[in-house]
Amino acid sequence: METSTTTLAEYLFTRLHQLGVDSIFGLPGDYNLQLLDYVAPSRLHWIGNCNELNAGYAADGYSRIKGIGALVTTFGVGELSAVNAIAGAYAERAPVVHIVGTPIRPSQESRARIHHTFNDGEYERFDRMQEHITVAQTIINDIRSAPAEIDRVLQQCLLHSRPVRIAVPLDMVALRVPRNGLQTKLSIPLGARQPKVEEKALNAVLGRIYNARKPLILVDGESRSAGILDEVDHLVKATGWPTLTLGFGKGLVDETLPNVYGVFTPQHKEFVDSCDLVLSFGPHYSNTNTYIFQTIPKQDITIAVNATSIHVGSDIFRDLPASTFLPQLIGRLDLDKVSKHTPNLIHPSSVAPPLVSSTDLVTQVGGFWHRMSSFFQEGDIILAETGTAAYGSNLFRLPRNSRLFKAVTWLSIGYMLPATLGASLAQHDLIGRSEYYNLLEARSILFIGDGSFQLTAQELATIIHRKLNVIIFLINNEGYTIERCIHGREARYNDITPWRYLKGPEFFGAPTEGEYAAHTWEVRTWGDLEKALTDERMLKGKGVRMVEVFMERLDAPPPLDSVLNAQIQREKAEQ
Amino acid sequence: METSTTTLAEYLFTRLHQLGVDSIFGLPGDYNLQLLDYVAPSRLHWIGNCNELNAGYAADGYSRIKGIGALVTTFGVGELSAVNAIAGAYAERAPVVHIVGTPIRPSQESRARIHHTFNDGEYERFDRMQEHITVAQTIINDIRSAPAEIDRVLQQCLLHSRPVRIAVPLDMVALRVPRNGLQTKLSIPLGARQPKVEEKALNAVLGRIYNARKPLILVDGESRSAGILDEVDHLVKATGWPTLTLGFGKGLVDETLPNVYGVFTPQHKEFVDSCDLVLSFGPHYSNTNTYIFQTIPKQDITIAVNATSIHVGSDIFRDLPASTFLPQLIGRLDLDKVSKHTPNLIHPSSVAPPLVSSTDLVTQVGGFWHRMSSFFQEGDIILAETGTAAYGSNLFRLPRNSRLFKAVTWLSIGYMLPATLGASLAQHDLIGRSEYYNLLEARSILFIGDGSFQLTAQELATIIHRKLNVIIFLINNEGYTIERCIHGREARYNDITPWRYLKGPEFFGAPTEGEYAAHTWEVRTWGDLEKALTDERMLKGKGVRMVEVFMERLDAPPPLDSVLNAQIQREKAEQ
Repeated sequence: METSTTTLAEYLFTRLHQLGVDSIFGLPGDYNLQLLDYVAPSRLHWIGNCNELNAGYAADGYSRIKGIGALVTTFGVGELSAVNAIAGAYAERAPVVHIVGTPIRPSQESRARIHHTFNDGEYERFDRMQEHITVAQTIINDIRSAPAEIDRVLQQCLLHSRPVRIAVPLDMVALRVPRNGLQTKLSIPLGARQPKVEEKALNAVLGRIYNARKPLILVDGESRSAGILDEVDHLVKATGWPTLTLGFGKGLVDETLPNVYGVFTPQHKEFVDSCDLVLSFGPHYSNTNTYIFQTIPKQDITIAVNATSIHVGSDIFRDLPASTFLPQLIGRLDLDKVSKHTPNLIHPSSVAPPLVSSTDLVTQVGGFWHRMSSFFQEGDIILAETGTAAYGSNLFRLPRNSRLFKAVTWLSIGYMLPATLGASLAQHDLIGRSEYYNLLEARSILFIGDGSFQLTAQELATIIHRKLNVIIFLINNEGYTIERCIHGREARYNDITPWRYLKGPEFFGAPTEGEYAAHTWEVRTWGDLEKALTDERMLKGKGVRMVEVFMERLDAPPPLDSVLNAQIQREKAEQ
Repeated sequence: METSTTTLAEYLFTRLHQLGVDSIFGLPGDYNLQLLDYVAPSRLHWIGNCNELNAGYAADGYSRIKGIGALVTTFGVGELSAVNAIAGAYAERAPVVHIVGTPIRPSQESRARIHHTFNDGEYERFDRMQEHITVAQTIINDIRSAPAEIDRVLQQCLLHSRPVRIAVPLDMVALRVPRNGLQTKLSIPLGARQPKVEEKALNAVLGRIYNARKPLILVDGESRSAGILDEVDHLVKATGWPTLTLGFGKGLVDETLPNVYGVFTPQHKEFVDSCDLVLSFGPHYSNTNTYIFQTIPKQDITIAVNATSIHVGSDIFRDLPASTFLPQLIGRLDLDKVSKHTPNLIHPSSVAPPLVSSTDLVTQVGGFWHRMSSFFQEGDIILAETGTAAYGSNLFRLPRNSRLFKAVTWLSIGYMLPATLGASLAQHDLIGRSEYYNLLEARSILFIGDGSFQLTAQELATIIHRKLNVIIFLINNEGYTIERCIHGREARYNDITPWRYLKGPEFFGAPTEGEYAAHTWEVRTWGDLEKALTDERMLKGKGVRMVEVFMERLDAPPPLDSVLNAQIQREKAEQ
């Protein structure tokens, strides 16, 4: 019996489709054109981006919603433009597959002096560079091992929720490979159970839980990449324990629950320190995710559940995947033995926004972030770019089945607009599969400063032409306010060039009429804001809606306001 | 006697200023803000870019006009966005200094989990990545050697005309270093003379020259980085020999001379093969610079003058810097012993453009590139982006003291718009120093396709707000025509989103009135083009002028037209 075969390219793209990729990002280049011929036949939608950095950011955004994302670039010039996005995916655990079309093997083997090289016959520099920012790599060069190599690398991507790179020489794209591997879908290997370690860990964890009088749940962003969101949700609801999130974890638990109190800020420190147990899920303790290390719970009262290890105080139980361990724990947990307590915390939903007059100018300190919460709906993906928006987003109250993207650790300004493209497209693809909370439509809402917007502004064109349901609040505060807060508040280098931002949709080719017409609003006062938010075109519009909100240069939410004050004090002391 | 000191930052920036940097590019980031405090005091102009890739491209463009360029980025997120530009500078020998502000040493040494890292305490990944794309690197970490390290790396940048990287931890910026080193300006070390090798080489070269009956001069782009343009100019004029350039060399010799016949295309091959000597200056024989290796002269009749070696046929004389060797050669050369001959070549200036009617649509095959030459003026910098523009630019007749930027080997689309910013600013800075051919004003003229424009479009804002004298011809042919010619001429992946390009200046904040008002023209027919080119606002305008020229999707100059035909033939054969 002859083995049925397919092309290498279709094998690769079919694998991606099986894993949940419906749309794939990238740009054509003359070392990937033949590869791209196989995208559509493999049932993937090609999303041409404006540049490769944006394609990488979009794939990252897509992967955080859909569990995997992919982009295709060309050798050298294309792939190198994407590396900052790939590095960000590594830092924040986004499972991105970076496929690079490379020159034909005869060129590589003869060290031919061709374009997109350094004209010196060396072809491996770009491979070497990207080993530092990917969790696995393969350079396809032997057709016998090609399918296994693809599978190995994709599995590493899933396992670590981190980017991988697959380089495919142009002359191998259409070579035949056996099709039979495709009959088994790839998945994360479970690994064998470690009964001894598991038992010890369960006993240690249950012991701490039953002894605790004042327990707390803390949810952080690596809960997503560890694949334990359902278990976390169960525990939050079943225990009723007070729950906080770190910034990276915000939006990963249902904030409408009465025991979920929002983001752990330094204001909660006294309360958290008074607890005798912190059950910490998916912790990611970088300075920017912890108010500069202020909101890391004390180790001796903490049980930390990481992707593959459980830390109980200073004891570490390794080789226990959280996604296997937590169901065990839930099965064993006797809720009758668990303490309940009502914390002395105010639920965010009961905090009223500051009073404002409709003729007053909109300010962040006067309640902009707080007020926006009433605009949000079930199913929204809300994205808050690095800068004042990311800090402000800590004040959002998120509706059920929503998600929040915000600056975590990589903090590359410019990320969030292309990530909005990716996330919104993932939302769109999930709705198309009827896998989005039974919703038939949903929005993506971006909050971004003018400085950040400028880095990747062109990707708005892709959002427009893909007819995505996206609303943008652009904060015009004349420059890099986050940098002004840190240092050089009056320095010229923190200025940017002034654009007419609301002309953007027109420039980028948005329809001016019809159901996908773009709409724009200029907001200076609270009255302007109210008008924009309640406008029929805002609420019923389907195309891009863009609101330019003017704010003062140094108007910033906590803790940036304190950072700014510290700068001013330093300056005074130096005078 | 106490040694006079300055800060590390001022030492670095003063060195750059001494070497000819008047303007420095980049973006602020919280690991470089304190570094940027010293830019203005060191007499450098800070040019804030829209993103780091664009900053790298701009520094590259600046360096090719001014002999050196520099940019400042921040650790991780900033520097990685720039790597594609740095790699391009390596490939095409542009002397770019990449300065990266890095975290304070206490963070690095304690492996602190801070932003712009992978949250794992590893700080050296980005150093390792960039070793592959820079000719020298230094990580400043000891104040005693800091000035010497800076000097070493800058000297390597000059010597190889290739990028270097200098990483400066934030806590070292304001440390004191001795000022005395600054009294001696850095320069390229001459090296000791090698009399034996030199004598042998001179004899070999002179022997070939005196024996030649049908000699030819071939000028390529590494003549610029080798620092031999004056000597090449002298030899072209003194010998009167027929002279051709490769694409990379176009614009480096005076094309108005009667013996300079433009770009060596396959059409000249028969003539070149009939010569008995080719004196080849600064050759760079990549596929894209040689019509896929068709226009490389035969080795046995070639004398190749490289940066540090002279190749006479198959004999190589090494360790002879061309900038030292050529003056020797010129001193020894007895012009009475040299053959003259008049080639059977048509001088480009005597070729009339095809006849057109003012109501006909503008086409590339109908003479667009040819016709543009009459628009050019002395001192213009003309930039032709990768794609149809780069190939079309082979047909330009360039005026005296002009320069041409075109795709060579790196061919990263998106390069040319930010490079226009850099080149135009270099032109502006040279005029400010009264070092620009006695001209008081000069223009930079960009030809760019719509696909390429989209990658880095935002940098138009910086061009506008710096009030640079820039004219842009944007070719709207609905996508990546160069890719369509190569493969997938009807494929969706070669499409782009349609923008309203002429709204760009307004979106990016251009003045609508006054002397720097932006002006735009839409061109479809030859009559439209004529009107735009002769418009007073075009000729006397000072701000950005932008012309959108509509063309057919598959309208492309040689050799892309043949590439397209080959694709069509392949398709037919496969049917």
